[in-house]
Amino acid sequence: MEKVSWQQAKVTGGFWAKEQKLIRDVTMQKVYQRFADRVQALKCIPGRDVHFFWDSDVAKWMEAAAYILADHPDDVLMAQMEEMIDDILANQMEDGYFNSYYIITDHTLRFTERGNHELYCAGHLIEAAVAYYQATGRDRFLRAMCRYADLIEKIFVTERSAKFLTPGHEEIELALVRLWEVTGEPRYLALSEFFLNKRGTEEDGASPAAADIQAHQPVREQREAVGHAVRAAYLYAAMADIAHLDHDEAMKSACLSLFHDIVSSKMYITGSTGTIYIYEGFTYPYDLPNARAYAETCSALALALFARRMSLLDADAIYGDVVERILYNGFLSGISLDGCKFYYSNPQEMDLKQQTRRSEFHPAPGRVELFSCSCCPPNVVRFISSVADFLFTTDDASRTVYIWQYMTAEGNFSMAGQDVHLKMQADFPYDGRVTLQYHGPDATLALRAPAWCSSAREKADEKGFLRFDVTDGAELSINFEMIPRLNTCDPRAAEDCGRAALTCGPLVYCLEGIDNGENLRDIIVDGSAITDGGEILPGVPSLLAPAYRREPAYYQEGALYRGTDVPYKTFTARFIPYFALENRGDTDMLIWVDYIKHI
Amino acid sequence: MEKVSWQQAKVTGGFWAKEQKLIRDVTMQKVYQRFADRVQALKCIPGRDVHFFWDSDVAKWMEAAAYILADHPDDVLMAQMEEMIDDILANQMEDGYFNSYYIITDHTLRFTERGNHELYCAGHLIEAAVAYYQATGRDRFLRAMCRYADLIEKIFVTERSAKFLTPGHEEIELALVRLWEVTGEPRYLALSEFFLNKRGTEEDGASPAAADIQAHQPVREQREAVGHAVRAAYLYAAMADIAHLDHDEAMKSACLSLFHDIVSSKMYITGSTGTIYIYEGFTYPYDLPNARAYAETCSALALALFARRMSLLDADAIYGDVVERILYNGFLSGISLDGCKFYYSNPQEMDLKQQTRRSEFHPAPGRVELFSCSCCPPNVVRFISSVADFLFTTDDASRTVYIWQYMTAEGNFSMAGQDVHLKMQADFPYDGRVTLQYHGPDATLALRAPAWCSSAREKADEKGFLRFDVTDGAELSINFEMIPRLNTCDPRAAEDCGRAALTCGPLVYCLEGIDNGENLRDIIVDGSAITDGGEILPGVPSLLAPAYRREPAYYQEGALYRGTDVPYKTFTARFIPYFALENRGDTDMLIWVDYIKHI
Repeated sequence: MEKVSWQQAKVTGGFWAKEQKLIRDVTMQKVYQRFADRVQALKCIPGRDVHFFWDSDVAKWMEAAAYILADHPDDVLMAQMEEMIDDILANQMEDGYFNSYYIITDHTLRFTERGNHELYCAGHLIEAAVAYYQATGRDRFLRAMCRYADLIEKIFVTERSAKFLTPGHEEIELALVRLWEVTGEPRYLALSEFFLNKRGTEEDGASPAAADIQAHQPVREQREAVGHAVRAAYLYAAMADIAHLDHDEAMKSACLSLFHDIVSSKMYITGSTGTIYIYEGFTYPYDLPNARAYAETCSALALALFARRMSLLDADAIYGDVVERILYNGFLSGISLDGCKFYYSNPQEMDLKQQTRRSEFHPAPGRVELFSCSCCPPNVVRFISSVADFLFTTDDASRTVYIWQYMTAEGNFSMAGQDVHLKMQADFPYDGRVTLQYHGPDATLALRAPAWCSSAREKADEKGFLRFDVTDGAELSINFEMIPRLNTCDPRAAEDCGRAALTCGPLVYCLEGIDNGENLRDIIVDGSAITDGGEILPGVPSLLAPAYRREPAYYQEGALYRGTDVPYKTFTARFIPYFALENRGDTDMLIWVDYIKHI
Repeated sequence: MEKVSWQQAKVTGGFWAKEQKLIRDVTMQKVYQRFADRVQALKCIPGRDVHFFWDSDVAKWMEAAAYILADHPDDVLMAQMEEMIDDILANQMEDGYFNSYYIITDHTLRFTERGNHELYCAGHLIEAAVAYYQATGRDRFLRAMCRYADLIEKIFVTERSAKFLTPGHEEIELALVRLWEVTGEPRYLALSEFFLNKRGTEEDGASPAAADIQAHQPVREQREAVGHAVRAAYLYAAMADIAHLDHDEAMKSACLSLFHDIVSSKMYITGSTGTIYIYEGFTYPYDLPNARAYAETCSALALALFARRMSLLDADAIYGDVVERILYNGFLSGISLDGCKFYYSNPQEMDLKQQTRRSEFHPAPGRVELFSCSCCPPNVVRFISSVADFLFTTDDASRTVYIWQYMTAEGNFSMAGQDVHLKMQADFPYDGRVTLQYHGPDATLALRAPAWCSSAREKADEKGFLRFDVTDGAELSINFEMIPRLNTCDPRAAEDCGRAALTCGPLVYCLEGIDNGENLRDIIVDGSAITDGGEILPGVPSLLAPAYRREPAYYQEGALYRGTDVPYKTFTARFIPYFALENRGDTDMLIWVDYIKHI
């Protein structure tokens, strides 16, 4: 299976074109302004403020700029980008090293602290350089980062002079694969393999405690997702790359186990991951606390990166289902509708009262423009700008084009040496109708039947695809019916047990206090007659569900504990798409509602 | 209203006689053995291990020994007690000071650290000395503690030479009231009033941060229970004492607000309190997390001490209801059925899987013989040994005897100058039949109609009492029907919302994994046909409820998220009394179950 990248596929309209326009018109410059100190740090002026993860923040913004500049010339953005590259090149050390933190503070301490994100920053700079080269053909940034990668190889592989063997925060592994893709230099692939192969070995200092950074056992032996959720998914993404490129069955087997461990027991219905704040990571299966979720925007995005790579290893619709779940829910929730504010932790439930539990972690209400650990905003912009990466893959042997996501988009790529042009029209996430126009050799189009669309899924093959043989000029139309429905969670997830979440098509819906009043957990929904509720904000629909709840007066009187003959009254509950949460001010929010059970 | 103390009332049979026997025969010596280091510390040998709260642990044990020795001569216990008193007297400083921690470490630092529990230890020593004097007539310990109280008065009131004005851990306030009761010395009552009156004043360093120790505002202005739950209730108990003794209406008003704040929004159905581990205390109304409860045994007991004092201020059945709730549930759960093991935090839900959430607080499974902060075991023994304190009060003016708790017991006390002899037969908590034999002047017997007994409550007056006029030799029988029923919680308590708890009479019931398998939250109970389930351990009954749940096979397959057409099967759920939890090994436990709602 071969990927079709953002260079060969473009979003041309619909929901994601609007999102990309918002990023271009608003978010990119908002983030740039907020990152003034970080951009300044690239100048490496002694004594200036700097943090060891700042380069990674800036690099992700640069990567986004590259994707944008590929199709949307923008003098301002280009000038900002070029100045940043000037600064990086001007301050890159003789031997290729670049890290603003160590250059500003004390470069003699470089590669001494595993926890200081040095290789993580290097990886993001490499990804930015790769994207900029691909987008513009300009190669000075790429060449500079090749010199840096060469130095890393020398220090870690040849000299073994670093104070640690593998990074504390994974990222460089997948970046080196991308560097190999554009340069063809096998040493970069080998360096990625080196970091993967050494990770979790005795030499690497493997121990149970090292699980927070997935260095507790060799990667091919890892079967359960553990530790920091972003680091984990970046690592697993690189593992999937290598499994695919090297036909490494042991690695593939590990990737399959890790992926299924996450999606079958450690992923919120929104596609978010990370359930404990102490190390921002995974705990035990089915531990999915809502009001106390970690659910970092970056970890949702990272799981999508892992899933996309898995789709090359294993043509199963589940990878597209997971990417879709993330795209429209736990990832998209991370940015406000106006493109200006972000979440680090994405609330899976908001009870404003609980905010008074001092010193315990609850995602804070209120989207913010900047947070000191601002990994998420630049990750959001690069992800949305390259979302076309997730659309298609090809299988030359069977001449099959796989369609993983439905957006208004075009693909221009080759399959088995022949040009393919694919035009897709789709108004996901609100309308399930998809039309495809195909130009190219005789082929099969394999359309993912979304897991939420049972009528399509019933007709799909066991891998979840609907296959259509097509010839040049073929046009295909299909309707993936989007029907509101209640979903239950595996009952081992204690907080969700006995409750249900409303979805319609790919969207998870939630209740907000602003529409439904306080004490959202007291609402009991009847899932049998859900109707359209109109827009709550321009372009943001709502759904209405018949429901029951206690009247406000009930709360005013009586004992804390009472009988079960409680006076429920009928009520109409208004649900909104989860991704649109908290765009009308701080308010309570609930995904998992009580519901009428027909036992 | 006048109290009838443990000296005037005795448990003579039934449930509590067995509990008291267990304490005498087993627990007292178990705790003594475990406290070897603490008992040893009374010898004040320089260089020995000591902790600043150890004296309080030992003193509570001594207080229990006193109650026991009053009716059950025991040479061993007496010898242990006398040796401890010898040690205390031998090491008491010239000026009356006694605290093994400061004497062993550096007595020049005494009264310099508000947080070091010095006055808390003094209070418990005073309570022990008072009880021992009342029980045996021996007064050397009492006289020694009077000298200590004199010194405290001198240092805190006369000289103002301590580094703080009021204690960091309340307790001495109520102890001084007891010291006044036996000595008649008004200076002790004044000293208690001094500590109460100064608390939370500007002089005392009042600030919002001082709320953890209830020193954020003057006590008469306090309306919401805040901070450490044990400290709070000890303080409120002393406030109620003073409100009663001084007819202090402002203090009474504060006590009423604080009590109702707790019982209407901050008390578990088991009578436990304390919902956050950081400061072991109260948070915001309706914050009653189950798996993450604090629910210290001492805080349940302390709330009972407060409630008993409130019953002298305000003849309302609610105080007896709360004491009863605590006695049979959140207090009694703190000691194992064999009398050998204890909880510090009493689980309100146990999901063994959650124990793997590192560094977050969940009450640990497994009752333990000793914990380093062992305030609860000696508190349990003194409380059970003096449980007769909670039975009766009298109102001379209306010649009414109030009966607050139902046990097989006898009372011999005076009312309006005339002797009363009251004999009660009751097999609570399993049988609601109560018979009373009255000897004394013409009087009214006011029997608390338990809140759980709606048939009795309907006949009761607005304060919840059934009043019977009696003459000498009268015999009264009543049956408080104990019917299993499901209870709901105010829906603002997020975790309990939509769920129900089974009670029968005064007992709260729970599900255990050992009887019902894993994933207890997946069980949906039908509350309409609950039947007797026989004993699960000698003397411990169970109840059976028709229910529904998913079959084990359901968990083996399928996605994390599915539709609502889940295959429920019928199932019989076995409930056991909450207090008997975890006496058959570590297992999951659930009080708040899903239930069939008839809307």
